[in-house]
Amino acid sequence: MTIQVLENLKVATISDDSVSYGLIPDGAIAIEGKKIAWCGQRMDLPGKFHDWPRHDLKRALVTPTLVDCHTHIVYGGNRASEFEMRLNGSSYEEITSRGGGIHSTVRETRRLSVEQLVTKALPRVDALISEGVGAIEIKSGYGLDIQTELNMLRAARQIADCRRITVRTSFLGAHVTPGEYRNRPNQYLYEVCIPTLNRACEESLVDAVDGFCESIAFSADHIDQLFDHAQTLGLPVKLHAEQLSNCGGTQLAAKYGALSADHLEFANEEDVRSLSESGTVAVLLPGAFYALKQLTKPPVSLFREYNVPVAVATDCNPGSSPLNSILMSMNLSCVQFDLTPQEALSGTTNVAASALGLQDTGRIESGLDANLAVWDVESPAELAYYMGFNPLLERMYEGEFDSACQSADRSVAAIA
Amino acid sequence: MTIQVLENLKVATISDDSVSYGLIPDGAIAIEGKKIAWCGQRMDLPGKFHDWPRHDLKRALVTPTLVDCHTHIVYGGNRASEFEMRLNGSSYEEITSRGGGIHSTVRETRRLSVEQLVTKALPRVDALISEGVGAIEIKSGYGLDIQTELNMLRAARQIADCRRITVRTSFLGAHVTPGEYRNRPNQYLYEVCIPTLNRACEESLVDAVDGFCESIAFSADHIDQLFDHAQTLGLPVKLHAEQLSNCGGTQLAAKYGALSADHLEFANEEDVRSLSESGTVAVLLPGAFYALKQLTKPPVSLFREYNVPVAVATDCNPGSSPLNSILMSMNLSCVQFDLTPQEALSGTTNVAASALGLQDTGRIESGLDANLAVWDVESPAELAYYMGFNPLLERMYEGEFDSACQSADRSVAAIA
Repeated sequence: MTIQVLENLKVATISDDSVSYGLIPDGAIAIEGKKIAWCGQRMDLPGKFHDWPRHDLKRALVTPTLVDCHTHIVYGGNRASEFEMRLNGSSYEEITSRGGGIHSTVRETRRLSVEQLVTKALPRVDALISEGVGAIEIKSGYGLDIQTELNMLRAARQIADCRRITVRTSFLGAHVTPGEYRNRPNQYLYEVCIPTLNRACEESLVDAVDGFCESIAFSADHIDQLFDHAQTLGLPVKLHAEQLSNCGGTQLAAKYGALSADHLEFANEEDVRSLSESGTVAVLLPGAFYALKQLTKPPVSLFREYNVPVAVATDCNPGSSPLNSILMSMNLSCVQFDLTPQEALSGTTNVAASALGLQDTGRIESGLDANLAVWDVESPAELAYYMGFNPLLERMYEGEFDSACQSADRSVAAIA
Repeated sequence: MTIQVLENLKVATISDDSVSYGLIPDGAIAIEGKKIAWCGQRMDLPGKFHDWPRHDLKRALVTPTLVDCHTHIVYGGNRASEFEMRLNGSSYEEITSRGGGIHSTVRETRRLSVEQLVTKALPRVDALISEGVGAIEIKSGYGLDIQTELNMLRAARQIADCRRITVRTSFLGAHVTPGEYRNRPNQYLYEVCIPTLNRACEESLVDAVDGFCESIAFSADHIDQLFDHAQTLGLPVKLHAEQLSNCGGTQLAAKYGALSADHLEFANEEDVRSLSESGTVAVLLPGAFYALKQLTKPPVSLFREYNVPVAVATDCNPGSSPLNSILMSMNLSCVQFDLTPQEALSGTTNVAASALGLQDTGRIESGLDANLAVWDVESPAELAYYMGFNPLLERMYEGEFDSACQSADRSVAAIA
């Protein structure tokens, strides 16, 4: 088992996310195998670590690896042509009539094998890893048929096998009703969605059950039926709620003790109180807010008032948020939603880990996973301050630093 | 002299920026030494190139290298603490009274030697290079005394010596009045700014003269005097104009036939007509618009109506735009200002080159510099569509591809 002491570093432990960075200006971290054995002020390093090998981090800042707790990173195609049509003046109707929108992503995703889905997703996953991400959530929801939904989840599991990153899957069969079940959401729910969930569960492909509760997607009543079934399977739930209107999703999520309720632009005080009572994390997705040019912001002051833990994620997806940078999502959350840089960092470490039910990462404390990001910055605020600049120096995952040339080969020789 | 033919590629030549990408779906590009010898459809490749060595680009998209035509990339310190104070509720007055704002950057910049200024700027320059940038503008303007203004320009010249990138310098002594000349802009202009410009000119450090024409900076009358002097030195001019209010800067820039007028949120129709008549480029800086949460947008429809060429740049600076990604600036210009992806790409290639007076880069045509960016995308629209995702495969500068491991070593071992 490898043992070492990292020293000559600043460390933001994020050990009490609601208050501070947990900053130790002259810290040391002892690593034993895959775990953090000790973290504290260098002068307090216990005697048992004194003869361990030392690694000088030259005054860099160490944080937990970042956690992207809401992504749709597995998908086929992209929607750049739709983006371009819209900016050239096409209406939503024209775009839809030319096969655009989410159904085009469903079409492109259905055409791909598991291996192809993995191949397409890996550059996006690698981009997150290059920013110090150590855990991501990956949703299904662009299959909307049994085979493709399963394939998306299998792809997510394969990504965890071929990259040094923790992956938590969410089954999002209740994303939208597919074209072939248009206006028959109930039938889709019982003929496709729930049977697929059962199959996926048998294959151990599902870590949580998700849904999109919205006027253009599923009603709170449908989600209620789905979550009731998830409960019988013993699976935790989470929900896309109150993104474009208030549909009662947040209350429902709270009723089921959801891990998280996500988006929340239209959540009201009653909704926030419910989240507080159920201990559900509010996940903010500022990339979608930005790309959709939304005007109504999530009620950040109420989250603070009711002590609702707030996470921030990329929502990486080809339609409403083609955002592939957790650092940029931190900046967007500060500039658009007035989160503080400290809230943005706890929201992409400790709180984001909670939103995925991960207990052993997201903070730097003895006994937790040795998942660390090492940054060339003076203060943790810089992580949210820069736009499109990545100050990562090194990433440690499960006690081992990534090798310098481990990033995927993106030269021409490597593309098909 | 190296000769080669790049083939099996799509190419966006940007040869007529106002109309289209100049897309060739199955193209070939012949490279002879540092220059493009030929570009066209593969089937039309002239006989003289048939026995040249071939390089298969495997269906990648080739564009000109990108041009960032407005940066303040050389500076000391950063303003993350100010960003954090503001989000924690501090007023501008409190921040200023604690030494924040541009004067803090002036203070930090004055403390650094030329070599230190270069060292601090290189990670930012390397980030741009990693996104396929081949030319950047670098301004002075954080010295505001003779020695530091000269040092900033010397640092910019040194960056061109140690990286494979074209650098155009702009003398921005008329950025703001420094503390020691508070309320005495006229005296600063004649005691510091113009003498420094003369010295810098003698050392061949200046490619253009810039100013900040704004209620909080210099009046149009002061800029007029500066530009008059620039004219006697034979230097082209450019101007930060109408960013926060309409102060007459655009008309003045047009009067001097400026290379560019930059920001332009408050430009009116008369201003736009003047730009059109003088052939001045309108440079949009959507990162500053975003970070300052501005509400008034630059008059993009008028630019189109009057055929004013539009460029897009990062405005990379530690205060109003800590943006270090030309790709993100393209996305910001589309989402915030409704530029089309085609306008965003011509605005960061051909038009941006014009804004710097560069004639030999920014398009793919025979006789121009062989400065190419090779992208893992299907369509050029993807470059503006993604947020925080870099699909660059390879960059060719002056006829040579960057070697794969040329990017600066950012591991812990490399930082001081």
